[in-house]
Formats: sequence, structure tokens, C-alpha cells
Amino acid sequence: MSQPLDFQSMILALQHFWADYGCLIWQPYNHQVGAGTMNPATFLRVLGPEPWNVAYVEPSVRPDDGRYGENPYRLQQHTQFQVILKPDPGNPQEIYLRSLQALGIDPREHDIRFVEDNWESPALGAWGLGWEVWLDGQEITQFTYFQQAGGQVLDPVSVEITYGLERIAMPLQRVSNFRDLRWNGERTYGDVLLMGEYEHSKYYFEIADVERLREMYRLYEAEVDAALAQGLVLPAHDYLLKCSHAFNVLDTRGAIGVTERQAFFARMRDSSRRISEVYVAQRQAREFPWLQEKTAAAPVGVPELPLPTAPADLVFEIGVEELPAVDLAAALAQLQERVPALLTELRLAHGEVQILGAPRRLTVVVRDLAPRQPDRTQVVKGPPADRAFDAAGQPTPAAVGFARSRGLPVEALQITELDGGRYAAATVHEAGRPAAEVLREALPGLIAGIKFDKSMRWNASGVAFSRPIRWLLALLGEQVVPFSYAGLQSDCKTRGLRFHTPEVIEVHSVADYFTALSSQGIMLDPAERRAAVADQVRRLMDAAGGDPRRLDAGLLDEVTALVEAPTALTGTFAADHLRLPPEVLISVMKKHQRYFPVLDRQGRLLPVFIAVRNGDEQGLDVVADGNEQVIRARFADADFFIRQDLQHKLPDLLPRLGTLTFQKKLGSMLDKTHRIEQVTEQLTAMLGLNAAEAEAARRAALLCKADLVSHMVIEMTSVQGVMGRYYALSAGERETVAQAIFEHYLPRYAGDTLPQGRAGLVVGLADRLDTLAGLFAAGLAPSGTKDPFAQRRAALGLVGALIGWDLDFDLRTGLEAAAAALPFPAAPESQAACLEFIQGRLQSLLLEQGNRHDIVAAVMAVQGANPAGAARAIRALAERVNRPDWNTVLPAYARCVRITRDQPRTTATLAGCVEPVERELLTALQATAAAARQPGSVADFFAGFEPLIPLINRFFDTVLVMAEDSAVRANRLGLLQQIAALADGVADFSKLEGF
Amino acid sequence: MSQPLDFQSMILALQHFWADYGCLIWQPYNHQVGAGTMNPATFLRVLGPEPWNVAYVEPSVRPDDGRYGENPYRLQQHTQFQVILKPDPGNPQEIYLRSLQALGIDPREHDIRFVEDNWESPALGAWGLGWEVWLDGQEITQFTYFQQAGGQVLDPVSVEITYGLERIAMPLQRVSNFRDLRWNGERTYGDVLLMGEYEHSKYYFEIADVERLREMYRLYEAEVDAALAQGLVLPAHDYLLKCSHAFNVLDTRGAIGVTERQAFFARMRDSSRRISEVYVAQRQAREFPWLQEKTAAAPVGVPELPLPTAPADLVFEIGVEELPAVDLAAALAQLQERVPALLTELRLAHGEVQILGAPRRLTVVVRDLAPRQPDRTQVVKGPPADRAFDAAGQPTPAAVGFARSRGLPVEALQITELDGGRYAAATVHEAGRPAAEVLREALPGLIAGIKFDKSMRWNASGVAFSRPIRWLLALLGEQVVPFSYAGLQSDCKTRGLRFHTPEVIEVHSVADYFTALSSQGIMLDPAERRAAVADQVRRLMDAAGGDPRRLDAGLLDEVTALVEAPTALTGTFAADHLRLPPEVLISVMKKHQRYFPVLDRQGRLLPVFIAVRNGDEQGLDVVADGNEQVIRARFADADFFIRQDLQHKLPDLLPRLGTLTFQKKLGSMLDKTHRIEQVTEQLTAMLGLNAAEAEAARRAALLCKADLVSHMVIEMTSVQGVMGRYYALSAGERETVAQAIFEHYLPRYAGDTLPQGRAGLVVGLADRLDTLAGLFAAGLAPSGTKDPFAQRRAALGLVGALIGWDLDFDLRTGLEAAAAALPFPAAPESQAACLEFIQGRLQSLLLEQGNRHDIVAAVMAVQGANPAGAARAIRALAERVNRPDWNTVLPAYARCVRITRDQPRTTATLAGCVEPVERELLTALQATAAAARQPGSVADFFAGFEPLIPLINRFFDTVLVMAEDSAVRANRLGLLQQIAALADGVADFSKLEGF
Repeated sequence: MSQPLDFQSMILALQHFWADYGCLIWQPYNHQVGAGTMNPATFLRVLGPEPWNVAYVEPSVRPDDGRYGENPYRLQQHTQFQVILKPDPGNPQEIYLRSLQALGIDPREHDIRFVEDNWESPALGAWGLGWEVWLDGQEITQFTYFQQAGGQVLDPVSVEITYGLERIAMPLQRVSNFRDLRWNGERTYGDVLLMGEYEHSKYYFEIADVERLREMYRLYEAEVDAALAQGLVLPAHDYLLKCSHAFNVLDTRGAIGVTERQAFFARMRDSSRRISEVYVAQRQAREFPWLQEKTAAAPVGVPELPLPTAPADLVFEIGVEELPAVDLAAALAQLQERVPALLTELRLAHGEVQILGAPRRLTVVVRDLAPRQPDRTQVVKGPPADRAFDAAGQPTPAAVGFARSRGLPVEALQITELDGGRYAAATVHEAGRPAAEVLREALPGLIAGIKFDKSMRWNASGVAFSRPIRWLLALLGEQVVPFSYAGLQSDCKTRGLRFHTPEVIEVHSVADYFTALSSQGIMLDPAERRAAVADQVRRLMDAAGGDPRRLDAGLLDEVTALVEAPTALTGTFAADHLRLPPEVLISVMKKHQRYFPVLDRQGRLLPVFIAVRNGDEQGLDVVADGNEQVIRARFADADFFIRQDLQHKLPDLLPRLGTLTFQKKLGSMLDKTHRIEQVTEQLTAMLGLNAAEAEAARRAALLCKADLVSHMVIEMTSVQGVMGRYYALSAGERETVAQAIFEHYLPRYAGDTLPQGRAGLVVGLADRLDTLAGLFAAGLAPSGTKDPFAQRRAALGLVGALIGWDLDFDLRTGLEAAAAALPFPAAPESQAACLEFIQGRLQSLLLEQGNRHDIVAAVMAVQGANPAGAARAIRALAERVNRPDWNTVLPAYARCVRITRDQPRTTATLAGCVEPVERELLTALQATAAAARQPGSVADFFAGFEPLIPLINRFFDTVLVMAEDSAVRANRLGLLQQIAALADGVADFSKLEGF
Repeated sequence: MSQPLDFQSMILALQHFWADYGCLIWQPYNHQVGAGTMNPATFLRVLGPEPWNVAYVEPSVRPDDGRYGENPYRLQQHTQFQVILKPDPGNPQEIYLRSLQALGIDPREHDIRFVEDNWESPALGAWGLGWEVWLDGQEITQFTYFQQAGGQVLDPVSVEITYGLERIAMPLQRVSNFRDLRWNGERTYGDVLLMGEYEHSKYYFEIADVERLREMYRLYEAEVDAALAQGLVLPAHDYLLKCSHAFNVLDTRGAIGVTERQAFFARMRDSSRRISEVYVAQRQAREFPWLQEKTAAAPVGVPELPLPTAPADLVFEIGVEELPAVDLAAALAQLQERVPALLTELRLAHGEVQILGAPRRLTVVVRDLAPRQPDRTQVVKGPPADRAFDAAGQPTPAAVGFARSRGLPVEALQITELDGGRYAAATVHEAGRPAAEVLREALPGLIAGIKFDKSMRWNASGVAFSRPIRWLLALLGEQVVPFSYAGLQSDCKTRGLRFHTPEVIEVHSVADYFTALSSQGIMLDPAERRAAVADQVRRLMDAAGGDPRRLDAGLLDEVTALVEAPTALTGTFAADHLRLPPEVLISVMKKHQRYFPVLDRQGRLLPVFIAVRNGDEQGLDVVADGNEQVIRARFADADFFIRQDLQHKLPDLLPRLGTLTFQKKLGSMLDKTHRIEQVTEQLTAMLGLNAAEAEAARRAALLCKADLVSHMVIEMTSVQGVMGRYYALSAGERETVAQAIFEHYLPRYAGDTLPQGRAGLVVGLADRLDTLAGLFAAGLAPSGTKDPFAQRRAALGLVGALIGWDLDFDLRTGLEAAAAALPFPAAPESQAACLEFIQGRLQSLLLEQGNRHDIVAAVMAVQGANPAGAARAIRALAERVNRPDWNTVLPAYARCVRITRDQPRTTATLAGCVEPVERELLTALQATAAAARQPGSVADFFAGFEPLIPLINRFFDTVLVMAEDSAVRANRLGLLQQIAALADGVADFSKLEGF
């Protein structure tokens, strides 16, 4: 192998590669930008219909990635190489992969993968779908099909390829720290850029003056407006970039609160939308001068249709660029359901249907497909007989017309009884059509029918799919089923595993097809692949001293969906990283890298991970080495943050919460903290915590949000609470306090664990009550699908904790306590709306748990303000409803209610009773009513009510409630009303089915 | 010729060229910078001792160069390609020229020149010496040897090469507008950048919000300080760049006053100095890690010294990179004086001495130089005789030591009369040394003795010269005189005309040398070259219908100094440019391009220019074409400004003067205008202007500064006043007003024309009085060499105008009038200091005019506040002093003064007179005193005094002034005091020589 390219030669090589391809070579922008996307050569040029191919270097500044030069991989400025191909050339992945070879990368010696990564820039109003490209686990390129920019739908779609040059150069030059990269023959990367890493990091994290930066932002924004008012796109864009950088610096300084961030994004997005609109209008006014004459595509001749005569196997492969794991699963599930149904609709007899798939392909195999549909005879209903034939029995014009429409002489019509009427009818004989013909028409619809959560367009066909479809294989027997879709023509060519030869493989049967793919190691069957992955991973876990049973099923599913030919490998990392919180390490391994962490039989993390590479064993040591470097860098990163954080004690972070805006009207996170303390104080009393619990709750309330301004949490939000606990313990806080800090976030999602201690429980309730009451009072109720402050999650956590603890708690009292702590009065309407919102979430939760709608409604109607009580009541009621005697219980109660519902309220007395049964019932009722009952208890209700049933039935059988004598009537109605009232506070039984 | 490179390929070609040379390839900076110099890869890396070679593209933003995309050449953003070579590689010009060939430029077909252009960045505290490189009159590159940056002296010196890529690409691609440059195979420069030119121009000139930009500047500056307080170099530097850009935008908006500009520069310079210091300290703390081991140069063996035996010709050539015109002239003048003196000192007989020179060489030719010095015998003085020999006549140790020091036995000493004493002396015989040996020692000193106004260092020798010395030729007869200087070793090689072959020519005699140079067309003799240029230019003028007599001698001198082999050529420009003010056109042609403008016999400008190219006739049409394009662009530029300006009438510009700060305390230029009006009003009365003049002065006072905010004047300050007149006439102002606007600036320099009308005179006085009185009152008197507000020039203009008009005017009254108009009271001390300052300038002026120091002092002592009167008196007094009888006149007056000087003041009466001569003298004196005299008139004084002289003489001869009788004495003293007082208000004769 020749000397690897130095850094500047890599840039020159890419410039040449893309210039040769036809790209305009552009220069980095003269603003601090976070990405090449923000250069107007991308940001503006992707808008509108004009073609544009460009390539340029872009040193990209991301203040919060600064590590003072200490992390081997992470830099506040990294060097992007940006390519825009507009429109999609049809094979951008392949062109891109060739450019890697131009850099000296031999793809067979590495694991190169396209891993789902969708891109969204809230500040630019832009998004796209695509991948991170991984080189041995390291993200080296972002590959995106732009769908929208500046709030505009893009047509055509642009392909954006963004290389991270440092990440590519490091394995290439075999160095493990960016500093050691050779820039040219004489100087290293560290020589020329290390000082900047240190200094800019220090500036961004420690020095930048928050007030001044905010003021700069304000001034820049005003200049955006001034420039746009004059229709000036580029000056406005420049100031938007300045806004964006100022925002990033503020953010890195920890000065931007969660809700404030949304406001900033909204403002920047608005600017970027207006800029984009003016730009497109300008180009339009100039009649889009770069728009080329569209050369009409030569019409594709319809190929000869093969007509097999015997049952044959169908193989249909949709060849795609790498599908995201969830999309692969979704597509397979839909095909599983749809294909048999479709074949039935098409009246094609068939044998076994197999739905198979891997990242680059969705495959349908149908065995023994009938060569044609059977012929069939159908009776087709025409006009009613009396309108088809006149009184003389002669066919009317209606009959003639109907017959003609069916290709029959009018004489062929018969009078037939159909759907309970007499009609003129035609008996139509339909010859079965050849399977190939039917499939040719149906297969495009089969593809089009596959739906994804997010889909994208890529070429002029306008077809949307999860990722671009690049080939279509459709063989019936040995013949191609010819059709076109998404600008492609079906044929008999599949593609093998990336970087294996031949790249394109012609096949002539299902057997051919399976052989071709398996010869390159591709496991087409997801179940088989899953088992293979699991088996390989378990064996390596075992070999590493881990517990093979501790295999994360979700991760296994995901990994299975990310590879076509899995080969697992073991990597190690330095054991001293194990002193970091395991949640952090595991989160990094699983979420970022899709590595399987290895735990021993005691559940302790081992310094080992298992990765699964796509491909065979060639170069496996290189791949393992690469992956180890990546995890090393990531752990170093976490370590960096935690060491930074440990320089202060957790309570010392509190003042910085004051710089973190929670919401404009509601103040900072420090303000929120003080409110949580206040509400906690009230709840400890309400919920009767003991002194130790109350003390822990008090301290945890003060500290529960402090970790939000720690570097580790700023970097990885998912470990909030985890880090709080860790830092609290480091700071010498009591175990109960530390645990409560962690637990106040629980439950974080459906099925998550609950707080184990009442301190954490109470602080969590206080936090959520404050969030909900506060935001509603501030006029920020969620609307439609918009829930920027995650109030749904807060409400769900609130009710989830209460239910989990089976703790009776009146939400109304809780909201009042929260409202009392707010910096401004909460209107009764907002409190009511807030309660209703929480109850809405409670109801959804209860329904999702599989409860019957009517039962939920019945309980919620009266116990909705006490989630645990409601849940308890629902369980009990459901249990009761399911007993066989329910159909005698409910009617008895219902009768009492129904007859009294619209009547004035009266009270029954024994004296007013006329018949013995009345007296008997009333006496029994009074005994029941006098018995002690748990409030809201369904059991207690039935315990009291059930004994009354025979008396009730007898009462109705023997007594006329609506007696003529008004006193008698009133006494009887009163009696029944008292029975109905037994359910007060338990449920509204009138909402039950069968009532 | 193959297809010329497109724009992006040019960049790639240069990147490759310099990468191959060993430069690190760098990227444009992520800030808006005015030049590649501001990229830290230059700004910081040129500091300190470490080597650094780098090359990069730098799109450079210069807001005030914006032309809305209308000018074919001028852009608010142009593409620099920047190279830094540190240290000087010894042949940077040659490497650079090779890079032009790499771009496809055939130098023989063009006129490529190194034209003096010194670079200074007031904001960066940096300067260097070097050139603009011209390609057919077009500046394509800035070539600079950095001497200082960030206020630090640079060692080693860096070579900075800054290509202007658009300027190179246009002739290469043969397009005449930047828009038409091909960027790549598909897109033009205009396609991708024209929109930016329009929009940014509009933003910078019209939209940018002045208050917001000022606020940004303030915030940036605060961040510079914050970063530096933490020792962070790069963040501080970034904010300094932001300051600089904000300043440039403010400046383009016309919001920066002349004096305010200085304050901005001072602040930025201070920042850049501090940044530089911290950077160097950082590198030093790291022990300058890139500093290579110095490999000691192999000692140069001293070559065999040739020893001619007969007289031989000496040719000594100092080969240099292109010298500036003034430096060439200065060096030749110094050699002319120094060489003969040196030969005398060296005791070398010689024939004719010729001092010759051209931009790349200074040549000394000495004919018939003696082969050696003559022998000589000298008597050397030793110790005094009485200390050299003891009483016994024996030599003392002193004598022994002296004899030994002279290499003689003590017996050889003699007693000799020397310098009026008796000494021991030695007679020393000294053999003459060979000429070559003597010259070898003397020639380095000859070079070192040449002094320049500005000189530079370039290599490790630390030698300073106008520009780098690159070779030394020293031949005595046919032999090299070997010596080394400035890192070079003398030899027998000269270099020919650039781009001609052979490049290096070995010569072996003076004749050889002359032949070699003239064979390439080099005219070594400046006089001959000047005559040739004049002759060529005159012939072309004549051919173009111009008046060959109107040839600017200064320009001719300059052009002569810029070429070695002159070839004149004619270019034309569009006649419609002639509607622009001729001062503008001429100024552009002469100052920017060194073209000879052509005027017809009536003094009208013709649409033609004559340029002089360095080289022969090859490619002359290409050269002419190139030059025409340049002037076309420059005129288009002027035209652009004037058209912009003419959209408003001159008075409409007044409000914008309010945005132009004159000085912080003194307010805007509009405030100043109002003060000028007020002072003008007073002066018109004082100086007795008639009604028409007063009216014109009043209007002119209002309008005199309005053109300062016109685009044309902002661009080319030298046409202030000229444009004012032009715009006034366009706006329909009266001719006298327009003329006064122009004339109020007169005289602008020594020898300039004077205002022809009293309106212009008075407004000019008012303007300067305001400037001086105001700045002194504001505490801003000039100090030392610092005169940022050009108060010296204001004072000189003030007194120059008054003297020129011979107009009596009391500066004190004028300053009082000016002070009265100031926005704050002027302290008497500041007024006095101001008067003293003006008088100081007046005195210098009068001395420079050749007046005797004592005469100036005598008159200034009493008439210093009236410049015209003082000048008049000095003329008259000088005339009188030069007459033969002066030695009788002055003593007569002096006697009167001297004897009375320390006596109490008395008054003489006829009654008090004792002797007839007293009475006679007093009578004559009273007659004289009663005669009418012009105030301050020297003639009137002498007319009155001279008749008294015989009486005065007789008086002293016959009378004892200090009589014993006190009344008699007092009367006599009073008489003489009255005579002395005749000179009151004329001069203080006691200051005259001989008094």
C-alpha cells in the first residue's frame, strides 16, 4: 500500500474527483457556520428547479463540540467536504463510494455502512432523509436527500454528501488522535489547529459574555429584517448565519433554556423561510436561467409479455438504498399482510408466500403461482325488472343500454331475484387473464401501497418511499414481468452485497436468486438473520466472560435490520472507563453505536462490546480496531464532561440554573426549582411523608434540576437524573436524596420503572404539576400535534406514578398548590383546562392498557381527578363486569336510575312506605348506607348493592313507582334515588354498555 | 495556445504549484476579511522566529469597492490567492513568476512589472515594502516583504504574495467583464457571484444600519478584551476581524469622520498589538517548536585575490529587486557623491567615474583605477618628549612601548616639533595595498552607506536596503573583487531584462557588461533613458494630435525610474469619459497608472494616453489592449461615483455631513460647517469684502464641505473641492460660489496656487482657524511627529494664503472669532498655544524660503501674529540689511537701545535738554515720530530713523548720557528710549546679528 494521502492532498483529491464529475468547485464561506449546508451554495441553490452541482470544503464550527483539544476525535471545528448533486443523478451512493476509493480506502478491508440518520435543521426550516455513512463504526459522512429547505418543498430533490475529513483521514493515516494527522509533508493537524481547539473551547464554554452575545443576536436579527425589507437575500442570509452562531455560543455557555430554544428556532426558521422565498422569487423573475430544456425521455417500448402455461415461482425484489430498521420492519409487515390479499383479489392461485428482506431489498417470493386467473361467470345486476321491460315485456332503452355495456345482446338479459328485488341481470363470462399481465398492472400498486412514517422523494417521478428505489427485479418463472415504476424498468438483475463482485447479478429463477445472494453471504430471511446475529453475539459474549442471556432484544432487532451479511466481532475498551456511570456507557454503546454491551452474571458491565459488521471476515481486525477507536473517543468524551462537572459540587451548579430559561413568563430553571420546593413542601404534608422522607424530598427538590447545567447532561440529555444522582453522591449528599433526584424523572416512558422512594415520587409530582399548571396558566396549552414542552409526557408521568404507587391524590388540590407557587395568578379556566388535559392523558393511558371504553368512561366520570383511584376502580369494575351474573346486576341498578333520572329529588322514609317490600328495601338500604366504605371503592359499592338486588327486583315487580298519590310516588322515587346514589363517587354506571 | 484555464482550475493549479513548492495548503477564513493577510495563517504565523510556508484562497470583502456589479473590474468581494514564504527563500520573485507561467501566462507577450507599492495596515499595526505586480498595467498581485505586524518587528521577514485572481483570469480568458469569466465548464463567475455583488453593494452603501453597526463594533471590542484577559489569541483575533468588518461597513456608509477614523484605527491597532504579543508569548512558552536546528552555513573560503598590475576598469553592480523611483534616484545621488570621496579616502587614483542605474541595478563604473595605493611615509606622534626620555636622555617605558606599537626599535624614535610641542615621534613607512584588497574591504561599506527614507530587511543577514539585494557583481579588470554582503558573495554575473534570455549573464569586463545589458535593451544611463522615454512619448503625443510640450516632468522622472528598457505605446479611451472633470481623469491616469495624459494645444484633454512598457515591442498590442481595459475600468468607476452623486444636488448632501464625525468633542462635519459659516461672517467684515463677495463667501461656507460625503470624494480624497465645484455648478450654484468651494482648500501644499477670489480665501481662513482653535481647545495639539489631524498643513495653508494675498490679518483676532463659535469655551492657554503653533509654522516657512534666521526672529518677535506683515517686513529688512551701509545703521540704533535697556522709562522734553545736540536730536525725533507710518513697515521705520543717525552719533560723541544730574540723565535716557521705540511694531532689532 502506498503512502496514505496527507490531509491537504485528500482535499485536493476530492476537489479533482468532483470537478471531474462536473461539480463547480466552491470555497468555504466567510462566516462561522455549523455545516456546509449553511453556505449559500447549498442553502439557497437547493431551492427552486434549477440544476446545481457543487463541491467545497467547509470548516464547520460547532461550539458545543469543543473539547479543549483533549478528545481524540471531537473538535469544535471540523473540516467538512460538501457535495450537492441536484437533481439526483440516479446513483449517488455509488459515485460517493468511488470517491472514497479515490481517497485510498479499500472498501473490502473495512465495514462501510449506510446507517439511518435523518437530518433536520430547526433553524433552517429544513429536513431530509438519509444516512450516516459508517467506516468501521465511525461516522465519516452524512448522506441526505433534501426534502425541504427554508420551509419550501424541494423539487427536484438535492443529494447532499458531507464528508467529515478528519474522521476519514484518521484511519487512513492510522493515527488515533486528530493532532497526529499529517496535514502536509511537514506539519500535523495539531501543529496548525490544536491551539484553536483549546482557545475556542475555552471561549465558548467559559468566556463568551452572555449579555453581549444576546445583544449581538438582537442586532443581527434586526439587520436580517432590514435587508429583507429591501429584498436582499445574501446580506440577510449572512446575518442569519451570525444569528445562528451567536445562538450556538449562547447555547454552549448554557444560557438557553429548553423553551427559549424553541423561540430562537422559530425566529431563525422564520427568517430562513423569508430568505428562501425572496431567493426563489428572484430566480423566478429571471425565469430560472439555468433551467435546461427538458429532453423528453425516449418512450420505453412495452416488452413482449411472457406467458407461462404452468404454475411458476414469482420473485419480486424492490431494490432500495439502505432502509432504516423501522422502515424495513414496517414494509415487511405490510407485505406480509398485503401480498396474500392481493393474490386473492387478483384471483391467482398460489403456493407458499415468503416475505423476505434486508436493508437493500424487499423480496416477495410466491411459489407455484397459477399461470393465469381462472375463467369466471358472474351475474351482473341491471335495472329493476319493471324499469327494464315495459308492460308489454319489451326491453326499455335502459335494458338495451345495460346489455350493451356488458357486451351482450339485449335478449341475453334475464329477470333474476337479487338482493330482495327483481332485476334485469346479465350473466357475464370472463376469461382468466395471464398472471404476468395481471402482475404487471398490480405490482406498481403493491409498492405504492407500502407506507412509512417518513417517506421521501428523490427523482422526477415524484414517487415517495422510505429511501430511493434503485432497481426492480420481477421474475415469473424465468421470465421478467415488465413494468415501470419510480422511473425504473423492472428486469432480472439484482445487486449483491456492497463491495462484492459481481455488483449486478442477472438471475433467471427464484433458485438463481437465492443462490446469487447467499453466495455473497446475504441472509435474506430476517428471522434467520436475527438468529444468526443472536447466536454470534451470544457466543462472543460468553467468550468474553459475559452473560449471554443479557441480550437486548430491541437492539438485536435493530442490528438485524442494519446488515445483510452479519459478522459479529468483539472490541474492548479501557477498564478505567468503568468508573463512569454504566447508564452513560451503555447508552453510548447502544444508542450511538448499536454495540451490544456485555454484562457479567452479576449484571456488572465488562469492558467489552460486540459489534456486528455487514460483510464477511475480510479485514475484521481493521474493522474491530476502527470500532474500538470510535468507542474510545466517545467514552473519552463522556469522561471529559464528567471530569469537568466534578470540578464543582452539585449544589454549586444551582446559580447557573438561573441562566437557563424554562419559559419566558415562568422564568428560569432556578425559579422553577424554587417552585418545585414550595409544591413539594405542600405535597409531603398532603401525602403524609415521614420526617426522613420529607427531609430527603426537600433536599432533592432543591437539587433535582441542577444536573441540567452539567456538561454531561447538556451533551446527552438522556442521562439527566442519572448524572444528578451520580454528582449528588460525589458531592456527599445522602443516598436517599441522590436516589430521589434520579427518581423524580420516573416513569420516563410507558413501562419504565417507578420511583422506589416517596421522596422521589413527591418531587416528581411537584415538578410535573408545576410544569402543567404553569404552562397552562401562561397560555401555552398544547394544541393539535404541537407539544413543544412535552406536556403530554409530563401528564403521563404524573398519572403513571400515582397509579404505579396506587396512591390516592386529588389532582385538583395538587394543581391548586402548584398554581399558588406561580409568579402570576392562574385563571380558574386555565386550571380547569389543565385538569381536563391531564384526565385526557389518563383516559388514553387506561384505554391503551386494554380497558373497555365504557368502563373507563364510567369511572372517569366521577373519579377522574384521582388517577390511582380511577385505575383501581376500573380494574375492580372490569372484574365485576366480566362475571356471569353481570346481566342481572346492571339491570337492577339501571332500573333504579332510569326511572328517577328526570324526577325531583326526594327522600324516602319508612313512614312513607306503603307496601312491605318498600319498607324492606328501605330498611336494607339504610343498613347498607350506614356501612363503612372506602371512598370510590367498587367492591364496597357492590358489597352494599348486590344484597339489595332481589328486593329491588321484587319492588319493581310488585309496586307501581309512579303512583297516583304524589306522596307515595315521592317516597318511592326517593327510595330509588337513594339506591342510585350508592354509586356516587364510584362510577357513573349509566355509561356502561347494557345500561 | 491551449484553452485557457477556467477560474476553478486556476485555483487548483495554484494550489498544486505551491503545494509542490512545499507550502501548506490552507483554507479561506470563516470571517469576512478584507484580505488574506487577516487570516490567522498570515496574521499570526508571520510573527516570531518559526518558519512557515502556506498558500490559500481568500475571498476578500471590501465593502467600499462595491459597484452593484456594474463595474467590469471592481468588486466588493474579490478572490485573493495568498502565499506566505517565511523566511525569504532568496528568489521569491522568480518562483512567483513561474507560478504565472503555471497559469498559462507567457511573460514575453505581456508587460509584467514590479511597481512600488508599500503596504500598511493601520488597523493591524503592520507594514511592509514591496510592489504591485502589473500585468499590462493591471495590478494582479501584491508582493510584500513584511517588516512589522501587530506592532512587532518581524524576524525573519515574511514574503507575502497576494494574487488577485479575477484580474489575472480576465486577460487570460480574454473577457472584459468579470461576469463573463468561466468558472467551470458550465457556469460563469457572473452566474454564481453577480447577485452577491449587487446585493452586498446595496447593503453596504444604503441599508446597513449605522447605529446597530456601531453597537456591534462596541460589543466585538469588548469580547476582544474579554478573550485577551484570558490569554486567548484566536477568539480575540476573530472579534478583531469582526470589528474591522463592522468598521469597513460603517465607513462605506459614510459614517466615519476623518478624525474618528484615526481613533478607530488606534483602537484596532492596539488590539492587534496585544493579540500579537500574547501569540508570541504562547509560542515562546512552547519554545518555538517549529524552529529548526540552524545548520551552520559552510564557511565560505576566501577566494584567491586577483592582483592586477596595471590600471584597470572597475564595474560594481548592486543587483536588486525593483527599486522604487525615489529610492533609485536617492541611491544614484548618494553614489555620485560618495564614490569619488571614497576613492580619495582609499588613495586610489582613477579616471572617469560613472554612476548608472535602472530599477534592478545600481552600477558604479570607475575607469583606469590604479592597481594599488601609492606607498606613504607618515610621522606618528608619540608621548611628549619630556616623558619619553628621562633626564639622562634614556628612553622611558612609555617610549619603548610606543616604538613597539609601531613595530620599530626604540632607537628609531626622534624628537620632533609637532602641534606646538615637542614629542617623541616615529616615521612609519606604509606600503600601498593592492586596489582589489582595499576594495574588498570598502565595497560592503559603500552599500551599507546608502540610505533610504524607508528601508527593509529580508534575510538573516539583517541588512537593510530599499529592496532586497539579490546579486553583487564586482569586477576589477577581468577579475572578481571577492567579498560578501547581505548573505551574497560577489561574482561576475549580472542579470538581464526580466523574461529575456539568458537570465543570468557572466561578464568579464566593463565592456562585456555594457554589451550584455544593451543587448537586452536595458538602458543603464538614467539620463539617456529619460531622454528616450521623453522622445518616444512626445512622438506618440504628437501623432495623437496632442501638444508634445505638455509633458509632465515629474511623471517623466518617475516613469524613467520604473523601466529598464522603455517602449512607449498609445492607448485610447471612450471620448464620453471626457465629460468627467479633467482633474479626475488626469489624476487617475497619472497617479494610479503612470500614464501620460495627452492635452491638445488648447490644454483640452484628449481621449488618449501614453503608457511606457518595460521591454521590447513583442506583444505590444496585447499590452496596449490590457492597459486600455484597466483605464476603462477605472474611468467607469469614477463615472459610477459621479453618476451616483449627481442623483442629489450638492446642498442635499449637507444632512449627511451630520453623520461624518469631525472630532468627538467638536461634533460632526455639519457642526464644523456651521462654525465655518459663523467665522466666515466675521471675517468678511474684518477683511472688508464687498457685498457680492460676502454673499458668495456665505454660500460657499455652507457648501464647502458637502462633497466630502460624495462617493467620488470618499473614493479619491484628492479631488475634494474639485468635485465640490463640479457638483455646485451642476446644482446651479453661482460660478463664484463654486469657485470659492474649490479655492477654500488652496493652497494645499507649498507652491500650490492661491485662491483667486476673496470668497474662497475667507472660507479657507475660517475653516483652518476653526480646525486649529477647535482642536487645541479640545486638548488635541499635535505632539512630536504626531499630527493626525494635519494641523501643520492647516497652519501652513493659513499663513500661506495670507502671505500669498499679502493680506494683513491678526491671527489673535481670528482665533478669538473661531473660539467664539466653538461648542465649549477655549481656555486662554489653549488659544495661546495655538497661536504659538501657527507662528512656529510661519517661522519654518519663512526660514525655508531662505530668509536669515536672525531677521526672521527679529520680525517674528513683534509681527508674528500677522503673517503677511511679517513676511513683508522680513523681505524689506533683508533688503536693508544687505545694503553696504548697514554696519553704520544698526550700531547707531543699537547704542540707543543698549544703554537704555535696563533703565526706568522716562520722557524727554526740549526743556530738559542741556546740550544743543540733545535738543537737535529730540526735535528731529519728534518730527519723525509725527510722520505717518504704515504699521509694521520696515521702510517707514528706516525712512524715519536713518536721518537721525548723524545726530545720534554726534549725541553719543558729545554727551555723557549717564550724567550725574539725575534730571539731565533721565531726559537723555528718555530721548534714547523714544528713538528705540521707533522700531516698536516693526522688529526687535536686538535679535539681529551684529546688534
